[in-house]
Amino acid sequence: MRQRYKPWAKEKLQNNPYFCIQEPAKHKGAWSEVFGNDNPIHIEVGTGKGQFINGMAQQNPDINYIGIELADRVIVTALDRLLESNLPNVKLLNVNAMELPDIFAEGEVSRVYLNFSDPWPKTRHEKRRLTYKTFLDLYKGILPEHGEIHFKTDNRGLFEYSLVSFSHYGMKLNYVSLDLHNSDFEGNVMTEYEQKFSAKGNPIYRCEAAF
Amino acid sequence: MRQRYKPWAKEKLQNNPYFCIQEPAKHKGAWSEVFGNDNPIHIEVGTGKGQFINGMAQQNPDINYIGIELADRVIVTALDRLLESNLPNVKLLNVNAMELPDIFAEGEVSRVYLNFSDPWPKTRHEKRRLTYKTFLDLYKGILPEHGEIHFKTDNRGLFEYSLVSFSHYGMKLNYVSLDLHNSDFEGNVMTEYEQKFSAKGNPIYRCEAAF
Repeated sequence: MRQRYKPWAKEKLQNNPYFCIQEPAKHKGAWSEVFGNDNPIHIEVGTGKGQFINGMAQQNPDINYIGIELADRVIVTALDRLLESNLPNVKLLNVNAMELPDIFAEGEVSRVYLNFSDPWPKTRHEKRRLTYKTFLDLYKGILPEHGEIHFKTDNRGLFEYSLVSFSHYGMKLNYVSLDLHNSDFEGNVMTEYEQKFSAKGNPIYRCEAAF
Repeated sequence: MRQRYKPWAKEKLQNNPYFCIQEPAKHKGAWSEVFGNDNPIHIEVGTGKGQFINGMAQQNPDINYIGIELADRVIVTALDRLLESNLPNVKLLNVNAMELPDIFAEGEVSRVYLNFSDPWPKTRHEKRRLTYKTFLDLYKGILPEHGEIHFKTDNRGLFEYSLVSFSHYGMKLNYVSLDLHNSDFEGNVMTEYEQKFSAKGNPIYRCEAAF
């Protein structure tokens, strides 16, 4: 469902700079100072309403999470969640994923999550898919050697495409599940979308791919 | 369904040496002489009752096919099919896949097909799966550089395992379908098993992986 226009969203994000970091490029190479500790940093590109990152942060207090989302009318719900949970190990960035190299130093991010990314099914939109090679370049630039992308989706076409894209990039698949909710994977935190979709009985695809 | 014991099978195979090649290691490096032409050779490891290889050979008269199957009581049905179709571009080998390096020279085989291989689901049987690394060694040894394995199965666990196994071996995935019968893949030739299984509406997984 498309979110309705929320003219007040941008202002609300700006008024909560503890959770929604403003001018994030200023912290490049110094994100441990933002969190006040040296814990690993995991980012979610396309964090949506933040259910995943909030759940992960509760489950793993020794990991710092940063949710990145371009749509202010969506990420504002993630902010509401954080204002409620008040977790110290989650931050939000209302930026475009293309800006990642300006925001994080090489190796500063320990893991990248992609969850239910827009499939952009038309071939002419391939370059917009978050698993297209130019995006893989961006992730590689901020991850350490052998850093991993953890990716899940219900979209068969996007998953098929992404497996091939990772492979052609020279990445190694360390884990593949073609039915996450009926697998032995433990500790899965569902996104809002995942909850709705999987209730229909359709499979969720998941993989871990390392540079 | 387990095939019943057929004590006459071995003898029937031996009595039809035009289709079921006896002492195949004698032809190592000289398979083009067996076929009487220089067309590419594609092999199917675990050819079962031969529906796939027979169908492929009809569809592609300019390719030579060799079906390899250890169980004589099964491959004898593939022989019956060939005695019927009388195709000049199919041969059968009643041997163990472990013998591949003794039978084919380096690069003599242009493609390897694996169809609905035994999943050997127990971890302690991993080494028996036809996509385990020791089998990949065998295929690599008889294929040219960048030679491909074309693999399909209905078994989710085996497919997940195989994607990871191919990837860790350093192979590239050139094609992945997670629902072959609802994909844009053309020219699919079904195995006996595939016909029965897919009638239940379950997905068939397929990939092409290159060394």
